[in-house]
Amino acid sequence: MTAPIIINEVGLRDGLQNQPRLVPTAEKLALLDALRAAGLRHFEATSFVSPKAVPQMADAAALYAALPQDETTEYAALVPNRQGYERARAAGARSVAVVLSCTETMNQRNINMTLAYARRVSAEVMQQARADGLVGRAYLAVAFHCPFEGPVDPAVVRELAAEMIGAGAREIIIADTIGAADPLHVARLFDLLIGEHGAAALSGHFHDTKGLALANCFAALERGVSKFDASIGGLGGCPFAPGAAGNLATEDLVNMLETAGYETGVDLDGLAAAVAVAERCVGRELGGRWIAWRRSQAARRQNRAAS
Amino acid sequence: MTAPIIINEVGLRDGLQNQPRLVPTAEKLALLDALRAAGLRHFEATSFVSPKAVPQMADAAALYAALPQDETTEYAALVPNRQGYERARAAGARSVAVVLSCTETMNQRNINMTLAYARRVSAEVMQQARADGLVGRAYLAVAFHCPFEGPVDPAVVRELAAEMIGAGAREIIIADTIGAADPLHVARLFDLLIGEHGAAALSGHFHDTKGLALANCFAALERGVSKFDASIGGLGGCPFAPGAAGNLATEDLVNMLETAGYETGVDLDGLAAAVAVAERCVGRELGGRWIAWRRSQAARRQNRAAS
Repeated sequence: MTAPIIINEVGLRDGLQNQPRLVPTAEKLALLDALRAAGLRHFEATSFVSPKAVPQMADAAALYAALPQDETTEYAALVPNRQGYERARAAGARSVAVVLSCTETMNQRNINMTLAYARRVSAEVMQQARADGLVGRAYLAVAFHCPFEGPVDPAVVRELAAEMIGAGAREIIIADTIGAADPLHVARLFDLLIGEHGAAALSGHFHDTKGLALANCFAALERGVSKFDASIGGLGGCPFAPGAAGNLATEDLVNMLETAGYETGVDLDGLAAAVAVAERCVGRELGGRWIAWRRSQAARRQNRAAS
Repeated sequence: MTAPIIINEVGLRDGLQNQPRLVPTAEKLALLDALRAAGLRHFEATSFVSPKAVPQMADAAALYAALPQDETTEYAALVPNRQGYERARAAGARSVAVVLSCTETMNQRNINMTLAYARRVSAEVMQQARADGLVGRAYLAVAFHCPFEGPVDPAVVRELAAEMIGAGAREIIIADTIGAADPLHVARLFDLLIGEHGAAALSGHFHDTKGLALANCFAALERGVSKFDASIGGLGGCPFAPGAAGNLATEDLVNMLETAGYETGVDLDGLAAAVAVAERCVGRELGGRWIAWRRSQAARRQNRAAS
């Protein structure tokens, strides 16, 4: 009754990009090894942005050159514009993703473009990817709630999704960038988009800021969506705000899916090992709810053994 | 499009019962005041169990005598057996609840009864409550997964629910006692039970052990269930296992429901104040995901003000 679910691991990019410690390429590759060992096969590997704007991603080309290749592993690169696209293509990327925010203010604050300009740039990149035979994917950021403009009209998301699909995007990733979505909103928006493009063209990217990411994933999952972003150990979000979780932790998503009988191909013990590698990368404790539970179980066993 | 949702606050009983510090009646009443000030109107007030077994509930009768009464506030008392029922009735309880575990081993370990005996005792209490004009409610504990016997057959839950309804129970509370349920399992079980008894006769009690409680609530909510248990600040669970959350935090549930447009009548700022009162009761930090987010926001504002 349950189809395999694809988990797109975004820890290497979305997770690392704002970390205060500059993570060397070799450590990123070690983290990737651990993630692959756990069974993950889809990765947002890096972002071809300005190294000045995002120093953490300055090694994008070098990282791409070193990515282990096999027939089942897929890597995607984020590209902010045509220049980034050309760099990604030159580096050997076969899948590229643009990020288009759904509101005027968010585009201006985030990438200093008007919404009109941002959608033109994103459409051009999708068209070029299609022309070049690359997979194009489009993130629609703040698709539920914008920190500057408030609730986002589903009609706007619908229009942008149609535009990106029209330009050649193979997949639209609906992103709750600030963790403000609720499962009813997710249900409504996905119902709308699935009606137009089918569930296979859609993916969900949920943040766990207030603990709603799994409920939001489930709302999309129930509607047939089978691709979700997640970040190992919840890596990402604001590193200076303990408790203010950012990305949905990969292990939390895998735990929910596997408990519910979905096939992910991912091993939870392997993810726990990858969390430890990610912790060494960023120099602080990571882990979502499943890791907290696992640690508490280990502590109980130790207490029992000691008594 | 959204009906009001009833939140049954269980912090005073389920939350406090295993706390190492014995909370005086006056402090329980102060916590109740804070919870009522936040807008909550349904409470699991206490449990008429043996004071030797659960010292924290030894003040059950005294607490009941002191409960503030008005037309909108409802209190329920847990009763393990006929003796407890009589004590609750004598104390003025108008609503009583029994707890029946769905597996043989859990009943034996938890209340030292066989399943057959436990269901007879529970049915007798429900019958007596009906005869006496009291509201009878029946918890079906470990309705998804038993720590001793593993996954629980929905057919067993169905049989026990029918038996309790037949004995006079007005409401069946389906409990994921160890936080092992997933939303697909919840969907299946509730579909089965709603088909027999209707959603209005059902309620959900989910633990947030691995972060799945909100997703589980949503799965039931989507099917028309409109009553859920929750515990202020996530109070309950094992106090010695940090991170191993027990009960679903009331504020997390209210945040999800209010964000999704459901009416709860509960104020989140008021719940934050109640969390602070609960923290003084148990002498440690409490709070679910919404509280963590709120604290991180406050910390950010302070950092901004200081810089």
